[in-house]
Amino acid sequence: MAYDLWYWPGIQGRGEFVRLALEAAGVGYRDRARSDGVEALVDDLDRRSGIRPYAPPYLVDGDFCIAQVAHILAWAGEKHGFGAGDQAGDLQLIMLQLTISDIVAEAHNVHHPIAGDLYYEDQKDAAARAAENFREQRIPKFFRYFEDALSANDGPFVLGDRWSHVDTSLFQLVEGLRYAFPQRMKAIEGDYAKLIACRDAVAELDGIKDYLASERRLAFNEDGIFRHYPELDAA
Amino acid sequence: MAYDLWYWPGIQGRGEFVRLALEAAGVGYRDRARSDGVEALVDDLDRRSGIRPYAPPYLVDGDFCIAQVAHILAWAGEKHGFGAGDQAGDLQLIMLQLTISDIVAEAHNVHHPIAGDLYYEDQKDAAARAAENFREQRIPKFFRYFEDALSANDGPFVLGDRWSHVDTSLFQLVEGLRYAFPQRMKAIEGDYAKLIACRDAVAELDGIKDYLASERRLAFNEDGIFRHYPELDAA
Repeated sequence: MAYDLWYWPGIQGRGEFVRLALEAAGVGYRDRARSDGVEALVDDLDRRSGIRPYAPPYLVDGDFCIAQVAHILAWAGEKHGFGAGDQAGDLQLIMLQLTISDIVAEAHNVHHPIAGDLYYEDQKDAAARAAENFREQRIPKFFRYFEDALSANDGPFVLGDRWSHVDTSLFQLVEGLRYAFPQRMKAIEGDYAKLIACRDAVAELDGIKDYLASERRLAFNEDGIFRHYPELDAA
Repeated sequence: MAYDLWYWPGIQGRGEFVRLALEAAGVGYRDRARSDGVEALVDDLDRRSGIRPYAPPYLVDGDFCIAQVAHILAWAGEKHGFGAGDQAGDLQLIMLQLTISDIVAEAHNVHHPIAGDLYYEDQKDAAARAAENFREQRIPKFFRYFEDALSANDGPFVLGDRWSHVDTSLFQLVEGLRYAFPQRMKAIEGDYAKLIACRDAVAELDGIKDYLASERRLAFNEDGIFRHYPELDAA
């Protein structure tokens, strides 16, 4: 059995947080818009009615359909064994995953502070100001928070020696910020040893190693959430 | 037994989505920063370590602590009977609640597009552009989505004749947008009859009627998420 994952082709975007956890767990999925085209995604979304996804990514299994990254991961984590395995732990993981969603949304707002459906070129001045605040205030505040969360156990993962969907998302967060803000990340990474150790441990998982070496892993680019505009970066 | 709810005093903010569901369900809670002061909130947040709330609101019950609005509501809804009562239904409610979180975050970005910790006065030009897009593109897109969700059953609530945490949140969303964008809401509300009917039905719940008439319900103001800046509104 394999899930259908529906997400915009051509970018890692929010879909990548779902892909990474499924890949790490060895859970099969078909990346439908990459195989069938973006029109198939638009058609699939349009034909749904009632309580449906607001936007991709969403995961489908027959009649079952679930959207919202943190929600997909919480559900799939419990089902496929990459959650905590107990309710108290799963609730903590969901809280962390939702906080990752918050910084991911802020990372997108940096290059689209006015509106997501306007071009970057039409909001560059606002983006420059947003980027300065994000680099100097927001990244450190979120990183301190995740560093503390990783202190709750002995690492390298949030749960200790067992990875969860929070770890694969922290990996992607670090990778995305390294791509978007290489100068800033180089300047501050040394302050967040546990976060970087978590990122490194995720990179060594068998499923992740295979995935990163495969054609399934798209490159970061300037259509996604994490975009490298040199004018938005600084140490 | 009563929960401790920790949230910034003086504003409805994100805490209001939690308050409304607890009030509708008749679940007891102490609004700690309103009784003990904002310093008590800062102290409580500071003393927590490891896996802790990134920001208020959070709900505490002894050693148990949970943050993130949609997550608090999903957990409390299952525990106190204002969820769906079955897993498939609860998963749908969580997806909707997370989408409400998304439009609430966008409503905040309208008046703080550059950064949340800068003054509105220092980002008014960007806010004016963000507001135009939010009024004309985003509100209708989200409202169509919620209108469809409310079509899944016979109303007035998402689940039909039984309210859930999604309905109290939709109530607050409509109230907040009416406060922030009165001209725009007056112009478009007629297109979203089910959403307005849901809002009206929530307003008639006994717990909500009592709450709205009490001093516990703060007024909207220009420190919260939904702010009325006349220059940001238009039909």
